Amino acid sequence: MSPSDHPRLFIPGPTEVSPAVLATMTRPMIGHRGKDFEALFARIGPKLQSVFRTHHPVLTATASATAIMEAAVRNTVRARCLCLVNGAFSDRWHQICVANGIAADRLDWDWGRAVRPGPVADRLKSGRYDAVTVVHNETSTGVTSPLAEIAEVVASQSDVLLLVDTVSSLGGSRVDVDAWRIDVCLAGSQKALALPPGLTFFSVSDRALERATTCERRGFAFDFVQYHEFWKKNVVPTTPAVSLLYATDFQLDRILAEGLEARMARHREMAETTRAWARARFELYAEEGFSSDTLTAIRNSRSIDVPSLNRELRKRGAEIGTGYGKIQAQTFRIAHMGDIQPAEIRQLLEWIDDIIGATGR
Amino acid sequence: MSPSDHPRLFIPGPTEVSPAVLATMTRPMIGHRGKDFEALFARIGPKLQSVFRTHHPVLTATASATAIMEAAVRNTVRARCLCLVNGAFSDRWHQICVANGIAADRLDWDWGRAVRPGPVADRLKSGRYDAVTVVHNETSTGVTSPLAEIAEVVASQSDVLLLVDTVSSLGGSRVDVDAWRIDVCLAGSQKALALPPGLTFFSVSDRALERATTCERRGFAFDFVQYHEFWKKNVVPTTPAVSLLYATDFQLDRILAEGLEARMARHREMAETTRAWARARFELYAEEGFSSDTLTAIRNSRSIDVPSLNRELRKRGAEIGTGYGKIQAQTFRIAHMGDIQPAEIRQLLEWIDDIIGATGR
Repeated sequence: MSPSDHPRLFIPGPTEVSPAVLATMTRPMIGHRGKDFEALFARIGPKLQSVFRTHHPVLTATASATAIMEAAVRNTVRARCLCLVNGAFSDRWHQICVANGIAADRLDWDWGRAVRPGPVADRLKSGRYDAVTVVHNETSTGVTSPLAEIAEVVASQSDVLLLVDTVSSLGGSRVDVDAWRIDVCLAGSQKALALPPGLTFFSVSDRALERATTCERRGFAFDFVQYHEFWKKNVVPTTPAVSLLYATDFQLDRILAEGLEARMARHREMAETTRAWARARFELYAEEGFSSDTLTAIRNSRSIDVPSLNRELRKRGAEIGTGYGKIQAQTFRIAHMGDIQPAEIRQLLEWIDDIIGATGR
Repeated sequence: MSPSDHPRLFIPGPTEVSPAVLATMTRPMIGHRGKDFEALFARIGPKLQSVFRTHHPVLTATASATAIMEAAVRNTVRARCLCLVNGAFSDRWHQICVANGIAADRLDWDWGRAVRPGPVADRLKSGRYDAVTVVHNETSTGVTSPLAEIAEVVASQSDVLLLVDTVSSLGGSRVDVDAWRIDVCLAGSQKALALPPGLTFFSVSDRALERATTCERRGFAFDFVQYHEFWKKNVVPTTPAVSLLYATDFQLDRILAEGLEARMARHREMAETTRAWARARFELYAEEGFSSDTLTAIRNSRSIDVPSLNRELRKRGAEIGTGYGKIQAQTFRIAHMGDIQPAEIRQLLEWIDDIIGATGR
């Protein structure tokens, strides 16, 4: 496919990557055990800490976020994990515990609903748990859970670590690792950060690192203790995707130049535009008050043919997301994350109206 | 660092990547759940099978080879693993078993020696083992072990799987997955395949897949069974590094256009040139008869200052490898792998002679 045939991606990842960011990946290779690499890594570190709003280490793994979700529970759960489940990715965290022989219970909300702190507080009273997993922004349902409130409840218990998937929120919605006392916060490169896929960034608190030293079966490849030891020397334990780190270094500058507050405001504006459009024509899948600022899941209440809509959109130069998981057939998703601009969202929605012959109610 | 300052890399990975290959990574992003991705993946699959010389699936993970070494033992060892150890990376496989609570024994050779089939046969007679790990080409010592003979011994036992790290040999030295009945064969993108780092390719035999279904704690992120299910549909379980797959698609065409036999002959020629040069000035670290065709580890018998040599080489536009692991101080390494040409090796060796003031004995 030539670049001119390329549809702009309004799918929930990978998101559009700026040509300037892609161009950095044509730089020649460097060794990952040398001064050039250390300098690159040293530049990236503080920028990641700014984006995560933390003074703790933000580590970088060449792997999908799923691998680091797995690493997070292997490195921190000794007793039992409580998995807060309200969609496909929070459900995945429970599946990951099971697949690793880690004791875990689920606390479920209907898909489309946000996780609420009250039931979490009740369950934690048992004292059985030493870690809680939660997905901040459910990419499957377009729901953002009230992370600050959930974190408050978890922090009120001693020795319960909070593990958070901010894969599709960080860089687009507010995530404040230190203020919210998040122990492990992980994010993929290919969502609101608008980088190519292949990297996962994750912050690790002091007490998470301390816990990791006591988890004997935490594995080798994603051992947080070893990652942290290498991180202190501006290197990584195994060969990283150097080209993607060139892109990261450059794109983090762009993100910080825009400013995190401005970036969040842009995401909110795009989300409000999309939600208003969707409410007038369909229904939102997310419960009111908890809609995501980075993607909107829309209940396909008019039974439009989404693959056919996408074929028409591609002729105009755009692509939207289908539904995901068990609600794939009932929903479709419009992602408004990363470097996408409000005018592009307005253009996209006009095109959809044009194709489906709708102009609101 | 500007491209013009770039030293040609004669280090054991990452190796030089052709500008034409790097340029493919500027292509716009595509969704990993769509037809464009399926077409890309479908093109890559058969080419990987040609390079691995197998009709079995060759799966692609966005992760370092270490992650797939870990996955290999988690997906296949039920009883006990025998780790054949003759250097840093084969030692790592044993460490990985320990870090995952997998029962494992080591069978050791001195560093610089090749693994021999005889002692392996003796140990397997106990009937305690259901998997054997071996590193084909020890990147730490420049030793290539006689894999065909070792594989023969393992294949003579029923129900013992052979897991092989060909990270720094595949694409440069002979690896014949089907003829040698290798159950899991893994290789990194950033060595003799001359791709950027970030991907690991691995073949999985039918009996390895069958074994995986019975390993309950094989994990989630690198579950071979799930990878294989997705592979059949030309997709991957989690978001892959799309840009690196563009590069892979293109570079595999270049590798197959050169031809595997011609590529191996080129590596052998570069190795022979380097070994002859090293024997006349230093000593080879590898025992005679088992020297690697992709990199040469040289005993620093003249006590040259390797960092200072590298500083001088960089002025001329080249960089060689230091020693690795416990022999770091006693050795240095010259990699002659990937797309490097014999004339470049000859030029490099002339430069080194010029710098250290040596002209052979």
